[in-house]
Amino acid sequence: MKTFMNQDFLLTNETARTLYHSYAEQMPVFDYHNHLSAREIYDDIRFSNITRAWLYGDHYKWRAMRTAGFPEELVTGPCGELSPSESEEQDYRRFCAWAETIEGAIGNPLYHWTHLELQRYFDITLPLSPGTCKEIWDSCNSRLSSPDFSVRNLLKKQNVKSLCTTNDPCEDLHYHRLLKKEGFSVEVLPTFRPDKAYLIGKEDYPRYLDALAKAWGHPIGCLSDLKEALTSRLDFFIREAGCLLSDHSLEGCIYAPAADEQAQAIFEKRMSGSCLSLEERRCFQGNVLTFLGKQYAARGIAMQLHIGALRNNAGRMLQCLGPDTGFDSIDDFTYAGELSALLNSMDCTGELPKTILYCLNQRDYEMLAAMCGNFQSAPCRGKVQFGTAWWFCDNKRGMEAQLEVLSSLSLLPVSIGMLTDSRSFLSFPRHEYYRRILCNKIGQWVEDGEYPCHIDYLGKTIQNICYNNALQYLKGTNT
Amino acid sequence: MKTFMNQDFLLTNETARTLYHSYAEQMPVFDYHNHLSAREIYDDIRFSNITRAWLYGDHYKWRAMRTAGFPEELVTGPCGELSPSESEEQDYRRFCAWAETIEGAIGNPLYHWTHLELQRYFDITLPLSPGTCKEIWDSCNSRLSSPDFSVRNLLKKQNVKSLCTTNDPCEDLHYHRLLKKEGFSVEVLPTFRPDKAYLIGKEDYPRYLDALAKAWGHPIGCLSDLKEALTSRLDFFIREAGCLLSDHSLEGCIYAPAADEQAQAIFEKRMSGSCLSLEERRCFQGNVLTFLGKQYAARGIAMQLHIGALRNNAGRMLQCLGPDTGFDSIDDFTYAGELSALLNSMDCTGELPKTILYCLNQRDYEMLAAMCGNFQSAPCRGKVQFGTAWWFCDNKRGMEAQLEVLSSLSLLPVSIGMLTDSRSFLSFPRHEYYRRILCNKIGQWVEDGEYPCHIDYLGKTIQNICYNNALQYLKGTNT
Amino acid sequence: MKTFMNQDFLLTNETARTLYHSYAEQMPVFDYHNHLSAREIYDDIRFSNITRAWLYGDHYKWRAMRTAGFPEELVTGPCGELSPSESEEQDYRRFCAWAETIEGAIGNPLYHWTHLELQRYFDITLPLSPGTCKEIWDSCNSRLSSPDFSVRNLLKKQNVKSLCTTNDPCEDLHYHRLLKKEGFSVEVLPTFRPDKAYLIGKEDYPRYLDALAKAWGHPIGCLSDLKEALTSRLDFFIREAGCLLSDHSLEGCIYAPAADEQAQAIFEKRMSGSCLSLEERRCFQGNVLTFLGKQYAARGIAMQLHIGALRNNAGRMLQCLGPDTGFDSIDDFTYAGELSALLNSMDCTGELPKTILYCLNQRDYEMLAAMCGNFQSAPCRGKVQFGTAWWFCDNKRGMEAQLEVLSSLSLLPVSIGMLTDSRSFLSFPRHEYYRRILCNKIGQWVEDGEYPCHIDYLGKTIQNICYNNALQYLKGTNT
Repeated sequence: MKTFMNQDFLLTNETARTLYHSYAEQMPVFDYHNHLSAREIYDDIRFSNITRAWLYGDHYKWRAMRTAGFPEELVTGPCGELSPSESEEQDYRRFCAWAETIEGAIGNPLYHWTHLELQRYFDITLPLSPGTCKEIWDSCNSRLSSPDFSVRNLLKKQNVKSLCTTNDPCEDLHYHRLLKKEGFSVEVLPTFRPDKAYLIGKEDYPRYLDALAKAWGHPIGCLSDLKEALTSRLDFFIREAGCLLSDHSLEGCIYAPAADEQAQAIFEKRMSGSCLSLEERRCFQGNVLTFLGKQYAARGIAMQLHIGALRNNAGRMLQCLGPDTGFDSIDDFTYAGELSALLNSMDCTGELPKTILYCLNQRDYEMLAAMCGNFQSAPCRGKVQFGTAWWFCDNKRGMEAQLEVLSSLSLLPVSIGMLTDSRSFLSFPRHEYYRRILCNKIGQWVEDGEYPCHIDYLGKTIQNICYNNALQYLKGTNT
Repeated sequence: MKTFMNQDFLLTNETARTLYHSYAEQMPVFDYHNHLSAREIYDDIRFSNITRAWLYGDHYKWRAMRTAGFPEELVTGPCGELSPSESEEQDYRRFCAWAETIEGAIGNPLYHWTHLELQRYFDITLPLSPGTCKEIWDSCNSRLSSPDFSVRNLLKKQNVKSLCTTNDPCEDLHYHRLLKKEGFSVEVLPTFRPDKAYLIGKEDYPRYLDALAKAWGHPIGCLSDLKEALTSRLDFFIREAGCLLSDHSLEGCIYAPAADEQAQAIFEKRMSGSCLSLEERRCFQGNVLTFLGKQYAARGIAMQLHIGALRNNAGRMLQCLGPDTGFDSIDDFTYAGELSALLNSMDCTGELPKTILYCLNQRDYEMLAAMCGNFQSAPCRGKVQFGTAWWFCDNKRGMEAQLEVLSSLSLLPVSIGMLTDSRSFLSFPRHEYYRRILCNKIGQWVEDGEYPCHIDYLGKTIQNICYNNALQYLKGTNT
Repeated sequence: MKTFMNQDFLLTNETARTLYHSYAEQMPVFDYHNHLSAREIYDDIRFSNITRAWLYGDHYKWRAMRTAGFPEELVTGPCGELSPSESEEQDYRRFCAWAETIEGAIGNPLYHWTHLELQRYFDITLPLSPGTCKEIWDSCNSRLSSPDFSVRNLLKKQNVKSLCTTNDPCEDLHYHRLLKKEGFSVEVLPTFRPDKAYLIGKEDYPRYLDALAKAWGHPIGCLSDLKEALTSRLDFFIREAGCLLSDHSLEGCIYAPAADEQAQAIFEKRMSGSCLSLEERRCFQGNVLTFLGKQYAARGIAMQLHIGALRNNAGRMLQCLGPDTGFDSIDDFTYAGELSALLNSMDCTGELPKTILYCLNQRDYEMLAAMCGNFQSAPCRGKVQFGTAWWFCDNKRGMEAQLEVLSSLSLLPVSIGMLTDSRSFLSFPRHEYYRRILCNKIGQWVEDGEYPCHIDYLGKTIQNICYNNALQYLKGTNT
């Protein structure tokens, strides 16, 4: 029996251990997609206890706690104001609920993430459970109060070199710019995420345009104003804060072709207060996405497509808690044809940007990995990337499958690897988790005689997947 | 090499063996979904030979025999009447055909089920094949004639404490009530399955309403009559026979929202003899399902949704043999959005009942498991359950995947575990099959250092999944 | 650690090694679906270097090279004419690019195919990489020039007994007939692939009808002419060249029912120059496919359905290079209901031919395997076959899954096994690859105690899957 989560966690063979410990482990982190707050990094905040670090914003944990039967008060916290001591007491109760929940998370990524975080940040090797809850609470909290545990130090502790947050085009990137000016050793870059600009069916679309107009400094009266505004903001993101990527969540539909006139007519119809059909929304989205993609291509910016979230399923809880509180899940619509048409709409004029495709439903892995192969082109290595396992796919089973499908249908060595997609400053050991799985899979193939034992080549390949490829792909820089 | 199907069948590691033999094996069975006949239990029938027990009603076996190339006469039996001795001879010929079929069922659950049944009921460890066919025929039949092999004794032999059959709201539950009155030591409870009441597109829908009206004792002239009838029958099921669950097969579509007025108009259109569109049928079904779900919630009854069967594919055979004769398969329609809307239609007013979601297509596992997480709520643990591997998923591959997806996206310890879904009194070793796979998976995680070696906690968790959770979930009783 | 790709490649247990070396290895090959050229076989061509054998026509390799970042000049070759020495130099540069690409194809079937081909045809055990590129180039080329490496000898070297190419009904089968007349020891049979006759929406449909009319010798003015033409060509294929199978690529849609009058009306609408709706195309296709299937049934010809390719995704490259150049991928449309209706449209009158179902998306495996079970009927064993892993599924992961799903939902021993689907004369070791995976899986079940150690029965079963079943299924011949 292997020791629980020791230095050889997930490494089941000798070659894997060599690849991980001699090559992967030492590599820095380029976390090119997450939901961290630049302000919190600039302010270098600290957490007064582990509940605040772990349970104040993590909807993965909230879902698990609800499944375990805990009341909302212990999940997202009490409704009213509490005194500081009541608050501390309540935080402890929530931590106890979490300890009971996590003990039952057998085979769940939360189990491994939680214990990697305890080990790597807090040097705690004890498994968290109701029996160890108090000891771990005290031990974590005594550490968290030290300056060593400010968020900037948490990033440095995990050897993070660059990270990309997720930002609306309206944002002024105040804190990104301050961090850049200050020259903080970890690069904190914004990602351009213009979803709200093409989700024309949303109730608050006109209000969003107002906000965008304000950020741009000009009124938006037509489609071409909208495009000019977006281009201007994109240039601002690049110029002022070194933006390298865009991001788009595609939900329910992807693309229909629409000439500018048609998209302009749909825009007018919407602004006149009329309801739009699904087809009209698809057309509008298609027109704007194609436009944006070409802008990214012209600027060397990568285009991320996150496909297939089904959000805000529980209307009652949306009203209480708002979005991103643990009531999202996996959609199952079919979209191969639409996605192909979207990519071709840019590629047909040679204006497809570097593109990263992520799906939320594992059943789409093969389709997506094969789709990438349709639009590869020199001189970029792996211009269209089959993105790493995302959200509900981001677990051992989903990551192993992603690596197998990527290997079977594409080329593993061009992959730009892992990202956290996280809202938590403690989640960087997820890179380690990925690297262990990657090394184990490759090591196993070598041990099984399916690939030659060329350790130097494989070690270098793994280092590329861990860090160098992302640098090269996103910044055109070789290490 | 491991011995063929010995006491450590499917248990590939030491921890798994401990978990199975010290914890799982001893647990009783709560088989909360099957298709057994309460009458046959009340009558305590016996089988005059193994062909009658195995081949007279099992469409899984029939499909396999047709695939092996056997003529229908040896599959479902001859058309005309036979004399008793002709019949016995014919039964033996059918058993020989089965023996040849099963020898080829390498890697098929039928192979394991067949041999578990031979071992557990008949103490036969010999593999069934043409070479052993006669010996096993004789050996089984000599046992079957003893009173020990009446169906009540078969249930007791497998430590079954409770079982839930599947029943139309029109049924009078005569035999369930007699069994209850008699106090038979195995609880035999009905399940409320009102499919025919909302499948308004079916040709015989009006005839079904007549039957339901008769059972209710009042005419059904409108939608609200229909709802009253169903509620009344539901209360009858609960009051007279201790019904704990409902069940629904959702095929081709799930849900569209429809106010009562709209559903009533559709009802009228149908009763006037007009054809309904798919959308109208979806709306009607949506209205009735939402209504029913709220009734279940009010009464603490669980709602089972079995999603995705594609039935009666071979029209020619449907005409000869009727439904449920082995011509059903797996559908592939997409339904995440509709399912979410159905669940939300009840949850939005706080009236979602305990719900168990089953899919027939493994590609929907992740979607379904993630969907459960959207609607969990205290105080129930695992209020919305990702149901165990069903029918075409009910095999080693499908069960392992179900457990992995459940673990990755939900919490294993809240699962209410296995059921047989069977029409055969000999199929209870399927619980053992599930338990071995469950113990093996958890044991492997422990051996691999992915979960600590907390045998007491894991053993108790497994016992809960095997039996206690179902009891608690369905009856609110703790052991 | 196992030696890289030695005699026990992919055989991880003793039973697997016995099954492979004592039973599978020696079996001849019946490659019942590929894209080889009968002319090249008749002419017994040779390749002047390994680039010409490997890289002049293999779109699998081209995709990988584009993914690796190589320019089109090194992928499909330069645009203009080259002198012989320039050409040889260019071929070597392309081979170097391939060597670099393949080194990175860790976990990709191309890696294993490439090295099986180097080993089996050229006795080269060195892994191909930039470092060994020159040595392997020289070594391969020195062999290729010998008469031993003519394509006929390549086929014999791999113990190929029969192969079935893919042919349009318009073809005159000139070279098939010459080969038959000559009595070449390897049977080279045509497959009837009438896709263009029912893809009525294609721009060049009228032109295709002209070609078909010419081949038939009569004008095609209506649907019934079309059907007569196809029947006549089918009979020609059978009579003149021993055709055993048909083949159909079903893309985007499968079937809608349409009476002859309706299909005739659609035909007329198309010939008058009007555009057809998707539904009209589906109806026309449905009518023709049902007709064809019944013709196949009457003649004992098998019907292959290849479902789910999404072709020619990159419009720009289609214009440069034409179809089948590496820009196809996997579609994700849903079709269980349509496929069931198509099969039933023939089965309902007892006219379903032997049918082989292939899908391109692994997520459809279970649906397809279960679908087969709906239409099995005596006296054929496995009349409806769940076809072997195809194209993007044709890799270790996809083949293992195909075998597991086939085993779980059907009967492994009736399977007619592997085919290459290849355009290359060097691809026959893919049969070996499949056989190793098959033996390994069965061997593992035996070693794990999940199936008895009945080596004789399993060995014979494996030999049937490798060769005898295809012979029996397609030719009604027992070995």
